[in-house]
Amino acid sequence: MTKWVYAFGGGAADAMTGDARALLGGKGANLAEMARLGLPVPPGFTLTTEVCTAFYANDRAYPAELEGQVEAALADLEKKVGKTFGDPANPLLVSVRSGARASMPGMMDTVLNLGLNDETAEGLAKLSGDRRFALDSYRRFITMYSDVVLGVSHSEFEEILERYKEENDLQLDTEITAEGWEVIIADYKRAVKSALGEPFPTDPRDQLWGAMGAVFGSWMNDRAITYRRMYDIPASWGTAVNVQAMVFGNMGESSATGVAFTRDPSTGERGYYGEFLINAQGEDVVAGIRTPQCLTKAMREKMGDTQPSMEEALPQVYGELAKVFDTLERHYRDMQDIEFTVEMGRLWMLQTRNGKRTARAALKIACDMVDDGLITQEEAVLRVDPSALDQLLHPTIAEDYQRDVIAKGLPASPGAASGRAVFDSDEAEHRASLGEKVILVRVETSPEDIHGMHAAQAIVTARGGMTSHAAVVARGMGRPCVSGAGEIRIDAAAKKFTARGRTITDGDIITVDGATGEVLFGEARMIKPELTGDFGKLMGWADKARRMKVRTNAETPADVQTAKEFGAEGIGLCRTEHMFFDADRIAAVREMILSEDQDGRINALAKILPMQRDDFAEIFRIMEERPCTIRLLDPPLHEFLPHNEEDVKAVSEATGLPADALMERARSLAETNPMLGHRGCRLGITFPEIYEMQARAIFEAQALVEKETGFKPVAEVMIPLVATAKELEILKVRVAAVARDVERESGVAPVYLIGTMIELPRAALRAGDIAEFAEFFSFGTNDLTQTTFGLSRDDAGKFLGAYLEAQIFERDPFVSIDQDGVGDLIRIAVERGRAARPELKLGICGEHGGDPASIRFCESVGLDYVSCSPYRVPIARLAAAQAALKAKQD
Amino acid sequence: MTKWVYAFGGGAADAMTGDARALLGGKGANLAEMARLGLPVPPGFTLTTEVCTAFYANDRAYPAELEGQVEAALADLEKKVGKTFGDPANPLLVSVRSGARASMPGMMDTVLNLGLNDETAEGLAKLSGDRRFALDSYRRFITMYSDVVLGVSHSEFEEILERYKEENDLQLDTEITAEGWEVIIADYKRAVKSALGEPFPTDPRDQLWGAMGAVFGSWMNDRAITYRRMYDIPASWGTAVNVQAMVFGNMGESSATGVAFTRDPSTGERGYYGEFLINAQGEDVVAGIRTPQCLTKAMREKMGDTQPSMEEALPQVYGELAKVFDTLERHYRDMQDIEFTVEMGRLWMLQTRNGKRTARAALKIACDMVDDGLITQEEAVLRVDPSALDQLLHPTIAEDYQRDVIAKGLPASPGAASGRAVFDSDEAEHRASLGEKVILVRVETSPEDIHGMHAAQAIVTARGGMTSHAAVVARGMGRPCVSGAGEIRIDAAAKKFTARGRTITDGDIITVDGATGEVLFGEARMIKPELTGDFGKLMGWADKARRMKVRTNAETPADVQTAKEFGAEGIGLCRTEHMFFDADRIAAVREMILSEDQDGRINALAKILPMQRDDFAEIFRIMEERPCTIRLLDPPLHEFLPHNEEDVKAVSEATGLPADALMERARSLAETNPMLGHRGCRLGITFPEIYEMQARAIFEAQALVEKETGFKPVAEVMIPLVATAKELEILKVRVAAVARDVERESGVAPVYLIGTMIELPRAALRAGDIAEFAEFFSFGTNDLTQTTFGLSRDDAGKFLGAYLEAQIFERDPFVSIDQDGVGDLIRIAVERGRAARPELKLGICGEHGGDPASIRFCESVGLDYVSCSPYRVPIARLAAAQAALKAKQD
Repeated sequence: MTKWVYAFGGGAADAMTGDARALLGGKGANLAEMARLGLPVPPGFTLTTEVCTAFYANDRAYPAELEGQVEAALADLEKKVGKTFGDPANPLLVSVRSGARASMPGMMDTVLNLGLNDETAEGLAKLSGDRRFALDSYRRFITMYSDVVLGVSHSEFEEILERYKEENDLQLDTEITAEGWEVIIADYKRAVKSALGEPFPTDPRDQLWGAMGAVFGSWMNDRAITYRRMYDIPASWGTAVNVQAMVFGNMGESSATGVAFTRDPSTGERGYYGEFLINAQGEDVVAGIRTPQCLTKAMREKMGDTQPSMEEALPQVYGELAKVFDTLERHYRDMQDIEFTVEMGRLWMLQTRNGKRTARAALKIACDMVDDGLITQEEAVLRVDPSALDQLLHPTIAEDYQRDVIAKGLPASPGAASGRAVFDSDEAEHRASLGEKVILVRVETSPEDIHGMHAAQAIVTARGGMTSHAAVVARGMGRPCVSGAGEIRIDAAAKKFTARGRTITDGDIITVDGATGEVLFGEARMIKPELTGDFGKLMGWADKARRMKVRTNAETPADVQTAKEFGAEGIGLCRTEHMFFDADRIAAVREMILSEDQDGRINALAKILPMQRDDFAEIFRIMEERPCTIRLLDPPLHEFLPHNEEDVKAVSEATGLPADALMERARSLAETNPMLGHRGCRLGITFPEIYEMQARAIFEAQALVEKETGFKPVAEVMIPLVATAKELEILKVRVAAVARDVERESGVAPVYLIGTMIELPRAALRAGDIAEFAEFFSFGTNDLTQTTFGLSRDDAGKFLGAYLEAQIFERDPFVSIDQDGVGDLIRIAVERGRAARPELKLGICGEHGGDPASIRFCESVGLDYVSCSPYRVPIARLAAAQAALKAKQD
Repeated sequence: MTKWVYAFGGGAADAMTGDARALLGGKGANLAEMARLGLPVPPGFTLTTEVCTAFYANDRAYPAELEGQVEAALADLEKKVGKTFGDPANPLLVSVRSGARASMPGMMDTVLNLGLNDETAEGLAKLSGDRRFALDSYRRFITMYSDVVLGVSHSEFEEILERYKEENDLQLDTEITAEGWEVIIADYKRAVKSALGEPFPTDPRDQLWGAMGAVFGSWMNDRAITYRRMYDIPASWGTAVNVQAMVFGNMGESSATGVAFTRDPSTGERGYYGEFLINAQGEDVVAGIRTPQCLTKAMREKMGDTQPSMEEALPQVYGELAKVFDTLERHYRDMQDIEFTVEMGRLWMLQTRNGKRTARAALKIACDMVDDGLITQEEAVLRVDPSALDQLLHPTIAEDYQRDVIAKGLPASPGAASGRAVFDSDEAEHRASLGEKVILVRVETSPEDIHGMHAAQAIVTARGGMTSHAAVVARGMGRPCVSGAGEIRIDAAAKKFTARGRTITDGDIITVDGATGEVLFGEARMIKPELTGDFGKLMGWADKARRMKVRTNAETPADVQTAKEFGAEGIGLCRTEHMFFDADRIAAVREMILSEDQDGRINALAKILPMQRDDFAEIFRIMEERPCTIRLLDPPLHEFLPHNEEDVKAVSEATGLPADALMERARSLAETNPMLGHRGCRLGITFPEIYEMQARAIFEAQALVEKETGFKPVAEVMIPLVATAKELEILKVRVAAVARDVERESGVAPVYLIGTMIELPRAALRAGDIAEFAEFFSFGTNDLTQTTFGLSRDDAGKFLGAYLEAQIFERDPFVSIDQDGVGDLIRIAVERGRAARPELKLGICGEHGGDPASIRFCESVGLDYVSCSPYRVPIARLAAAQAALKAKQD
């Protein structure tokens, strides 16, 4: 019989085999592990992720054995805590929480204080000696349960509460007495009955099954789906449900609740880091409704906070907690994110998990732990999420920039960014999609704001602490964030905010400095990040660990220079057509296209030749002897022609070519499916003079730079869109002839290879023939994805969302390689290509070259290098190292 | 050492191994074979096709050993005929002819009378006792050699000849005396020297090498390349060169030359069939300059010819020839196409080969030979070229049609067609490409006209016999042809012809009846061909031999009916979108597309439902219980919207929808690459209501027809453009739900399968997953070719010609499956699909389904059926039979 339920607590946990996180979820696995470590964990039990999977596979029905196993676990729990579920005399209360394999903070539902009804609430009142606390817990339970399980909106209850406070002239919830809560609870129950036509459930067992069902159901809510898509979490993993005896942080002044990190999650500095609230439940900390107190005295002093820290307020419990921190960090060999509660002076650990951190913190923690001998260099390399490096690779505000500070809040997520203030997440997403840089400004954020946060350059909130929703999510996304900037007053309806007497309206440019917590007026001058220190150290370890080379996709000298500084070991893709669009040469390009015959084209190309030669020379000067893959002209010619009348007129005036002829030619070159049209090597075949000019420009540039610098530039001439070996054979002969001509003329023998992009399914299938003429393959996975799926990147927008929603695509195949389909073709091509030419050089130059999952795939099929945009080079270096290390582990 | 040269003659031929045709070419192999049979073949030797291959592989240089082998063969030849090359006393003269593996009549070059110079011509004069004959031969040699080898145009010589005749007031060449030819020859030689700057070569060995080089060179001339492309002959086969002792049909009245078929190549009737000329060389017959005489008395009488037949004029030699015919036909077990010469009463066989024939003749000959016990039924099936059947499957003129005959010529190629008269091959090709039906009208045709003949519906020539270029080529192409219609006078420059006092100008519609030789004014009423007799007999044998089923791609009742009559065993592709374009329903379709929401779409679809149901019912009524594969909507929605203002206005008036909204919607639906856009199952996923309506229409039609007729119609519901198993899974559930609904409503359980087109590379690669949800696969090779090559069919026209020219594509991949690339994907899909679901039904519904080479491929990968357009069904049946028989042979 499948074991669906695992118990923990009292210094032990049910034995299990296999991957604990996969089966019990992160929270469940850690609770069990903490229990085994002898730490004070409130006892409870976990319904496994397999229950979730079975639930969805079976049309939302539970496995038959589940009920019996839950009953047994409940009986065991009652025994452990000495309380009974539903017993008015000594009621057991439980929390019901989700817990997936990967952390998804705030995405799924939780119910606390479950087991309360009119009778057990009175029992709790008696036991605690605090009727107000008991009724407060009861009303919280009704609110939460109604919202999560019954679908009755929170606002209904807030209205009742507000009305009561108004009628009784009260300001704060804490002013409400036990009798007051009694009245309010009665109103709450009436509201539920009127909304649902049924009374609020009073049987604790009904409550329990309702809550468990709601948590499993929340696995498929929109927020969770969005979050999983963003963080690449498969829906098939499912969530576990943890049922755990309640402990109360709100049983008076000797009770408290808090969250903590064992190191600073923002900077990685050593030292406990966290917040707590006296006489509160955990949700109060996370929700950011009351401003929490610091955990340590040092932190309090640094923040200039006046409320006592936990170290000062509850020194004994704090001492216990600090010991637990050390135990956990040593045990897990990683920085921990911890939730705890103090119930009348007694410490309870509610959760521990590896803490989310900024990239900077991840680097520092990994390096520090290596220094401490806690982990190896290779482990350190594996510890840092390559995608997260992105946030270190972007600009910060120049030190000497004159800051015009409009407000200050908490430095919730580092980095700086400028953009136009926007007050709504939908608006932020919309305007970002139009190419505008926006800063999302909100009172506080909730999971409904994720898309807006993702679209924004940075986030500012008026409320919430360092562990508020905005702060946690922004750090995860690598967006700069200032949270809890209490001095700003937001009027979202009017699309403006005021602070320090100034008003910022929708569209004004502001700058967010997530490192200092400042919000500045206007667009700040930025400087590039320093790539030394921990970053340089870790990159060094990564470079030792990786097998694949990392190149860059770049053609402008600025990009090439940036990429080189980021560690690019060559150019994987220089798109020569980008050079055709330059204002000072597009006229000659158009003249070439408009020529009626080959002679006309040759004349026009002769004008372009010196410019292309200079382009290449510039690149060779920067890259010295690093290999540079230069792709010959790829797009269809009509892309270079103007298409609307206005543009045509301008071009006509500039070139002296008649507008009619221009329009006519543009029309005659127009294609039904340009992706599949007369482009790439097809142009090379039909207009030999174009590739010959480009080849000449490359080889002449090599000769020039070699004479000038003494370096021998290395060119890899890449023929695009090859579908047959014959195309490459023909073009290779022509390019080689140009090389011989240039050698004869210049006296310099160019160092070059001739190869091709593998970007058509047929090229992958015929890789064996093609390799006879190709000295290298570069997988052009953008086009290969388009043709393998029959999916135009330009047109997919209309249904890609629906496809991700329906889980037809687990991930956008243009972002992460479709390993089953496109990947299969790559495997075939690698196999057949290497069989025909064992020394064949293999790389990837599609945008997937900067995606860690795709890089892992490239390692698995044995590519020699990946190539990506300049800013992703460090990410690729780290991802390649991780891929190599993981391959070694397997 | 490679043997490059093989001798024949004198009752023997050099021994060889392997495929004689492949090594020696068709002509060389047959000459050797005839020599071995003891038939009178002028001795000679063959330079193998391997010489040609080596020649082109080695930059047009011969293998080193060739010269020695040619010298040895020449010495041997001199011994056999007792003459010496270049010996004025007893000169050996030779012919030098091409001879490829496949016959390419008139495509390559030939030189006759080689070995003549001033001295040997006088020697020939003495030996033959006819100085005029010798000098006539000499001038013919100079003309031909200059044209073929030296590149001096024929017209130069014609001018000299015409001038001489004018100056001497002569009408015919035969009136020119020996002395006249002497003058003319001197002029010819001067013309050559002035054109080339060098004298005409006098050394016979120089002449020989020059001629051999020219023949090898002609393998790559434009005509030959065009011809090979048309008949799918690989360039790599190369041609052989045959050097053979000359015999002369022009040595007086006891000499003659002729061509003959052992049966009538037009009808297949038994009885020798051919033409000859007294005192002439072979070229005179083929060129159609003199009108030749009939071979047999019977033929002469039938044609109403007044000149004596060979049977009457040269009875003894005719008797010998008739015996040779019988020997050859028995030996080769096929109708032979023979060339012979009679030199002063002695018969010489110059060539034999399997004769080209019309499809009708092929059928009759195959059936007759089965009746005679000469070949088996299976051999008969293999004897008929499936593509040639096309000419039997097209209409002939209705018997009761009132014919308005404008001219009569020879019934050179059967079948009838109407079209506009065009007088130039380029023009014919151009106008046909615009969709016009044209009839090519020429004085005579030459290899330069092939593209025009191919583009034309039919061909009319004013000159030439039944074996003229026009007649032979038209029969090969299956184009109706009337040749030698001497009564028409063509003024090509003025684009008109006159006949019987009437003038037909460019663009007038005429009708050609290739069966009677009549040219009619206007467009005649046609009737469908009878598909009985020999046709029915052979099809019966084919059906017994084949393994694959043959279905049709059709959606209109007329097409479905035609296909059924042609033997279609089901529908392989019913494109439902064609039904959307009907004038009376396009308004509802547009309403559906323009709907802002699902409800609007559902309302509009409700209007389309009954129409679609009727469409399907009509098809099911015709097909009874034959399986019908119905593809759900495939094209992007914008295809149904009008795009220009005029159309929009019309639609706006018809539908009452505002023009602005129509234009806006059309714009918003427009796609960059519609081939790769929001279409096929992607529409099905995002607009579920469309496929649900279509599924309902199918199942309701099945119920309707079953109740009405008692037949149980069989539907195969095909989901297009699937790239992932998940798409099919989702849509299959929806379609199956509709089937259950209809069953509940109608009480009839529909008989159906759900499957998919495999038309994307990813679908082929993931065939294993997809087969879990698909009960059948149909290979959509049109789109699969587009995506595998990354090649848009709509746009490929710009470079496809260049690609065929450069031999990058051996054949147009949209016409014949690219077996190496697209075929590899099909093999992968078949393998993976069948592994997952062994009973998976597999078919092809791309246009390749009617192409014999592609059908052979389908047999080789084990598909269950092919599907093609109605008129190609018999072709597919025969091709499938041949494929099965060939597979059995291998």
